[in-house]
Parts: sequence; structure tokens; C-alpha cells
Amino acid sequence: MSRRRPLIGVMAGGEGAPAAAIAFAEDLGAAISERGWALLSGGRPEGVMAAACRGATRVEGHLVVGVLPGDGRGHERQHTAELDLALFTGMGQARNLINVLSADVVVVCGAGGAGTASEVAHAIKAERPLVLLAVPPLWREFFCSLSPGVQCAEAVADCCALIAAHLQQG
Amino acid sequence: MSRRRPLIGVMAGGEGAPAAAIAFAEDLGAAISERGWALLSGGRPEGVMAAACRGATRVEGHLVVGVLPGDGRGHERQHTAELDLALFTGMGQARNLINVLSADVVVVCGAGGAGTASEVAHAIKAERPLVLLAVPPLWREFFCSLSPGVQCAEAVADCCALIAAHLQQG
Amino acid sequence: MSRRRPLIGVMAGGEGAPAAAIAFAEDLGAAISERGWALLSGGRPEGVMAAACRGATRVEGHLVVGVLPGDGRGHERQHTAELDLALFTGMGQARNLINVLSADVVVVCGAGGAGTASEVAHAIKAERPLVLLAVPPLWREFFCSLSPGVQCAEAVADCCALIAAHLQQG
Amino acid sequence: MSRRRPLIGVMAGGEGAPAAAIAFAEDLGAAISERGWALLSGGRPEGVMAAACRGATRVEGHLVVGVLPGDGRGHERQHTAELDLALFTGMGQARNLINVLSADVVVVCGAGGAGTASEVAHAIKAERPLVLLAVPPLWREFFCSLSPGVQCAEAVADCCALIAAHLQQG
Repeated sequence: MSRRRPLIGVMAGGEGAPAAAIAFAEDLGAAISERGWALLSGGRPEGVMAAACRGATRVEGHLVVGVLPGDGRGHERQHTAELDLALFTGMGQARNLINVLSADVVVVCGAGGAGTASEVAHAIKAERPLVLLAVPPLWREFFCSLSPGVQCAEAVADCCALIAAHLQQG
Repeated sequence: MSRRRPLIGVMAGGEGAPAAAIAFAEDLGAAISERGWALLSGGRPEGVMAAACRGATRVEGHLVVGVLPGDGRGHERQHTAELDLALFTGMGQARNLINVLSADVVVVCGAGGAGTASEVAHAIKAERPLVLLAVPPLWREFFCSLSPGVQCAEAVADCCALIAAHLQQG
Repeated sequence: MSRRRPLIGVMAGGEGAPAAAIAFAEDLGAAISERGWALLSGGRPEGVMAAACRGATRVEGHLVVGVLPGDGRGHERQHTAELDLALFTGMGQARNLINVLSADVVVVCGAGGAGTASEVAHAIKAERPLVLLAVPPLWREFFCSLSPGVQCAEAVADCCALIAAHLQQG
Repeated sequence: MSRRRPLIGVMAGGEGAPAAAIAFAEDLGAAISERGWALLSGGRPEGVMAAACRGATRVEGHLVVGVLPGDGRGHERQHTAELDLALFTGMGQARNLINVLSADVVVVCGAGGAGTASEVAHAIKAERPLVLLAVPPLWREFFCSLSPGVQCAEAVADCCALIAAHLQQG
């Protein structure tokens, strides 16, 4: 029998992430798979985005989905090796919005750039459950000023508890 | 270990499909799952689209993905019950293009309406491998006039053989 | 005082159009400007698309809008020289849908390829007023089979009369 | 003769803007028209967005363009009365990205909500010239932390000088 699997969107930077953020994202990815949730990300083979996918595939039964900016032709087909499923949008940064709308809960992991910031903003606008995990104080301050519903966590376990609570509320 | 699973896009009409087309689509969906491929469709709970998903979920180990036009809020969250994964785009008919770009092979099953026709046209434009399965003669004639690469099949087994050949060429 | 100007979408092929089709599209573009309507097209500097823009700019008071597939950076900024306004979507072929939805009336001019066919299909699906101008018999037969509302014309003047009637109905 | 007209994107909140912000946006819209630039906005009949359009139409020779989230059917056709041109995307918040990519210079006017924040983030990601006009200190601090290229102004005249400098650099 089929049952739709919860999809947890992990939004995070690509290039230039510090090693600590990479390790953190791997733990988050693994924790998502351990709970039987599917992982959704931007799918590019870089930085925190790729690290979360890598962590998720360490756990058996994982389902790792990437929604990509390219159109799937030639070098536009490039994605991180850990994807179980790759979706190609050919829509550039507009794919950020698809990731946000498709996630049952959106998690922002560590510092990111402007692309990640656009995803947080879209998540608030679309009223998606949103957890900021270990983000810089300025990120927390800015996005909490846009909505009282934004939640924050500093540890992966706390983040997963918040996700679980959102999934139970449905 | 993870390996990206082939994604077969089944494009077909929603409302008003004849019973024969429904049965046909169920067989196609089941055949896709039996070969270990994932099924991608428009995900709405109607007609041929839903029938293919239903057939796919009859087989163990299935992976049924729907890319939906709605934004996932309220009644925009509606999708066919057989989805393992639902992706919400909030982009209306533009999601047709995402389905086409994401599919390793696009199959058009039976007669469809204008939405299905847009998917065939996008598949040809994007040079995606395309199989027209049991479509009316006028559909075959029109789309084959747009590209010499369009392939046709009348039986599910023949269609799956064409898909397999495309996947092998990679 | 401001009043929204009617926007006539001219959908047509890019590369490889015959000289007769080019001349025809220039006449159509000029006729649209003469009636005070704005012209909307895909905006690329090629074929019938560019010819319609060129014709439109021959008439004083023209307004020629292009909605482009690229994101406006570097060579993605390329567009036909005759645009008064260029909109960059960064969404590839999904911009076809925006053109269709934005047009008060959609005109398909002459033979086109798969991209043009996707625009006709989207126009029918979105129930936009649609005129097929001097298209091949197979195009007429196929698209009229998808909807009883599709109209056909062989001359620019007849096409403009159909457009005017649609605009009057509002 | 035709020449592409510079397109200045004014991004700002819809509902719930204070009266001072409304007056400010009207001045900005008028100043844009006076300089012969076209105004691009989200086009909805609300708040700062509508005020900028209203100001722009006070000046003769204005060109006011709205790129709308709806698909142009029924109540999805609603837009502010001051538009010279309305483009319907049917893509919800993804239209924010189109506005940003299409603008030669992006101006964010006053405080906004999460939708406006997504536009600022997309503008930085896409490396579009960006001026924050009279935004709250926290907005300035956050977005300047994402890019050293973000410019700020407190007065309409200063903002227009920054726009003019960007347009000259081309």
C-alpha cells in the first residue's frame, strides 16, 4: 500500500560553506532519513546542500530528492551523486519556490547566501512551517521580524522534534 | 548506496477518459513499477493520470511521484491518493514543462486534451525521448510532423521495450 | 489618463521560416500597431517572431513587448532590436505560457515548430481567444479537434477583424 | 524608430502600508515617469505597489507595467487600474523573480513583507543593480550583509540619481 511520505526541505548554501556547517548538515540529513522522512533539496553538488544529501543516504531506506535549476540537458544535468530522484525545472531560481511549496516543513541549515534567503522569505510568504537551524543571529532577527511563526533550533535533535510536531499537526 | 532511479513521465488526460483508456493506463503504471522505474505524472486524482498511479502502486517497491499545478495550500493540496511523493509548484500549467524536463522518457498514453498536447510539444522542443502509446491517428500524424524522432507503440510491452532502449542509451 | 492597452500575442517560429511567412508576419505586426494594440511576442531576434516586431515598429505609436526565455545576463540578454519593452523570465520554455496568459487574443502566424505548438495547446487549455492565421491544414485539423472555439483566418485583415470582435466582447 | 525603454522595478508591500509610505511611493513613481523610464511592479491594486503606479501615471508619457501572480481568468484578472500593460503569469510568487530579472534597476521602497524580502534576495542572487529606498535599519543591515553591492537612499531624488548612474553604466 502507498502512503505519501513526509518531505522535509533542507535549504542551505552551495559554495564556500565552513567545515563545521558541512558536518552539521550531514547529521541533519541522516536524522531525517532515520525518521523515515524524505529529504528535499536544491540538489546541486556543492556545500551544505550536498552534505545534507550525503548524510541522508548513509541511512537505509532513504529517499533523497533534488529539484534542480537546470533543464536537464548537457551540463544542465549536473546534480549531487546522492539523489534518488532528480527533477529538472529549467526555471533557474524559481525552483527555490517549488522546493518551499513542496516541503511539509522547511529547514534552513546554517548560514547561506541570497538564494537561501529567498527560500526563507518564500516559506514565510507561503506560510510553510519553518525552522531556522543554527543560523546567524542577524538571520534570526530579520526573519523573525517578518513573521511570529518562525521557529529556531541550535541542535539537530531539537530541530527534528520541531519537525515531528509540525507533521503531527498535519 | 544510492543511485538515481529512472523516472518515466506518463502524460495523459484527466477528466472524461473512456474505460478502456483507464485500464490501459493501469497496465502501463504496473509495468513501469515492475521494471524498477519510478513513475512521474501530473498527480491529479482524475482519469488516466490517476489510473497510471493506481497501477504503479499495485507492484511492490513502486515510487510514484506527482508534480502538481497547485501551491499545496487548502484545496490546492488535492492529489491522487497513490502518490509516494507530491511536489507542489504553484505554477499551474507550467508544471507540465517540469514533468517533461524531469522525465528520462516521456510516454503519452491514449487520447488527451490540450494540456497533454502541450506536454508532447514541450517534450519535442526539449528533445526528450518520447513514446506515443495508443494515441489517435491525428495525434500521431501531427506530432510526427514536428519531429522525426517521435516513436509510437500500440501495446504496453512494446512501449516498455522502447523505454528500456532509451534508458540504455542514457 | 491611463488605460490598459490590448495586448495581442503573436506566436510563431524562430529559425528557418520561408520568406513568404516573414513578409506575412511583418504585415500582421504593422496591422496590430495601426489599430492601437500592443504586440506581445517571444522576443528573440529570429524568424517570424522578429518579423512581426519589425512590422509593428514601422507604425508610429507602437508598443512592442517581448517576454524572453533567458535571465537577462550576458548572452541571455539577447533579444530582437525592435522591442520597446523586454521582460526576462529565466524560465526557458515556461515563458511560452506567460505569453499566452498575458495576451488578450493569441494569434499563431504561419507554420511553426514544437515551441509554437506548445503555445497553441496552452492557449486552448487556458481558454484564451485564439486565431490560427495561415497555418498548414494539419495544424488546423489537429488544434480544431482539441477545441470547437479555435478560429482560423487566411488574410491579415480577416485575422484583425476576429481580434477586434474578441476585444469588443471583453 | 524603436528603442528599448529602461525598466525600473519598484518592489514594495501590498496590504497594510502606512500613509507616509504611500505618499513616498507616489513620488517615486512620478519621478520615474518624469525621467522617461518605464515602471515595473507586481501590479496588484494594493498598498505601496499601487501607489507607485498611481504616481507614475500622473506624468504624461508614462509606461506602467504590472507582472501579476494570477492567470488572468476571472478574479485572477484583478490588477491596479493604473497599468498600461498587464502581464499574467499564473505562477504565483514565482512572478517576483520575473520582475527582478526584467528590471534594469530594482528599487525596494519602504518596509515590506516576506514577498518583498524574497524580491530583494532574488535581486542580490541575480546580481541586479539594487537600491533600498527608505527601508528599516534591520532590512539594510541584513541585505547589506548578503552583498557589498547593495545601495541605500533615503530620498527619492538620491534614489533616482543612483538609478541613472546604473543605467549609464549599462
